[in-house]
Amino acid sequence: MEVKQLPELQGQKRLAVFFGAGEEMMRSLADLAKIRSMPGAYFTRIGALRAAMLGFFDIARREYRRFGIDEQVEVLSLTGNIALEEGEPRIHAHIVVGRFNGATLGGHLLEVHVRPTLEVILVETPASLRRRFDPATGLALLDLSDAPG
Amino acid sequence: MEVKQLPELQGQKRLAVFFGAGEEMMRSLADLAKIRSMPGAYFTRIGALRAAMLGFFDIARREYRRFGIDEQVEVLSLTGNIALEEGEPRIHAHIVVGRFNGATLGGHLLEVHVRPTLEVILVETPASLRRRFDPATGLALLDLSDAPG
Amino acid sequence: MEVKQLPELQGQKRLAVFFGAGEEMMRSLADLAKIRSMPGAYFTRIGALRAAMLGFFDIARREYRRFGIDEQVEVLSLTGNIALEEGEPRIHAHIVVGRFNGATLGGHLLEVHVRPTLEVILVETPASLRRRFDPATGLALLDLSDAPG
Repeated sequence: MEVKQLPELQGQKRLAVFFGAGEEMMRSLADLAKIRSMPGAYFTRIGALRAAMLGFFDIARREYRRFGIDEQVEVLSLTGNIALEEGEPRIHAHIVVGRFNGATLGGHLLEVHVRPTLEVILVETPASLRRRFDPATGLALLDLSDAPG
Repeated sequence: MEVKQLPELQGQKRLAVFFGAGEEMMRSLADLAKIRSMPGAYFTRIGALRAAMLGFFDIARREYRRFGIDEQVEVLSLTGNIALEEGEPRIHAHIVVGRFNGATLGGHLLEVHVRPTLEVILVETPASLRRRFDPATGLALLDLSDAPG
Repeated sequence: MEVKQLPELQGQKRLAVFFGAGEEMMRSLADLAKIRSMPGAYFTRIGALRAAMLGFFDIARREYRRFGIDEQVEVLSLTGNIALEEGEPRIHAHIVVGRFNGATLGGHLLEVHVRPTLEVILVETPASLRRRFDPATGLALLDLSDAPG
């Protein structure tokens, strides 16, 4: 993982993060958010993977069903955010990947194994958009406790 | 639906909008744009749905073929914009959702039934990016009448 | 192709680009980046296509497998960037499209034939995010040569 600090946007930190072949993204990104003191952030990307573990949230059982992708795929769409859960960064991301024949798969992102590269642009979230972990849904939701509307 | 006003970005209003289980997004979002006087806006999101109605624009018949999704799905990608049509906000959005097994479906968004949550960040469009409804294509297109190029 | 210059965002040029039926996007977008002196840019869009040529990067052979889409599809997700390769703009984009029945396809974008319309918002990349073409991977990567981290 290589990291490049970008000019701040309206006082919010921005980092370009570059992953090479064989690296796993989820743990590295969470560590980075902690080291760089970014309590909240969102990100976008472009790249490709050699494998991934996706999940689907089972409402009844309140847990993720897991399914693996064990082949080279293109990352077609990847969006997500980072929030603190008891002081630890927690990543919530959804992905769409493309197979060799153009078929697509997607879901909640649990593990990402990069090949050959994956780039992520991390943008710090304004304080007003900070999230809190919600045990009831297992999701990091916007903290609306002081919402005016 | 809960709404939180975010700091303006370069003078453009921004709203975080939170939908709970059982809520329908499309009508609520259009009403919100009207009440908050946002004649144009774009949005992004994260969340999950218990059902949706999608469409595919049939060029020959100039209307949307409709197909329903009647199961829990993750929202993997959702982008769109809001424009005025004869003074009423009109939403144009495209979505990709993920099924329990990682299969994906997508299309033009007609109805969205949330479960457990869906978050949308609405950003007001600069005046120069306002759209107009184009009867010829049935789409809200950028108004290019004063385009320099 | 019609082009509308938008207000600059933090000193970065922004262009709204409108393609009509029958136009091919990739070549036109690269020409535009050259004419308007935008050495780096990223873009988003909304629209529909009558045909496209997609690719999947074959790691072993270091080339794209090509597969065509020869039917009307909705553009569900399209992200990408523009970088210079030996002074010429080179576009790297990934797409997800939706078929008449909601099935999705996607991959690396090689050709795009518009119908009825496709809109693209091009945003100039800050100098710190400029890319260079990397012959080893065939991709336009962020230039991290002066990365602090």
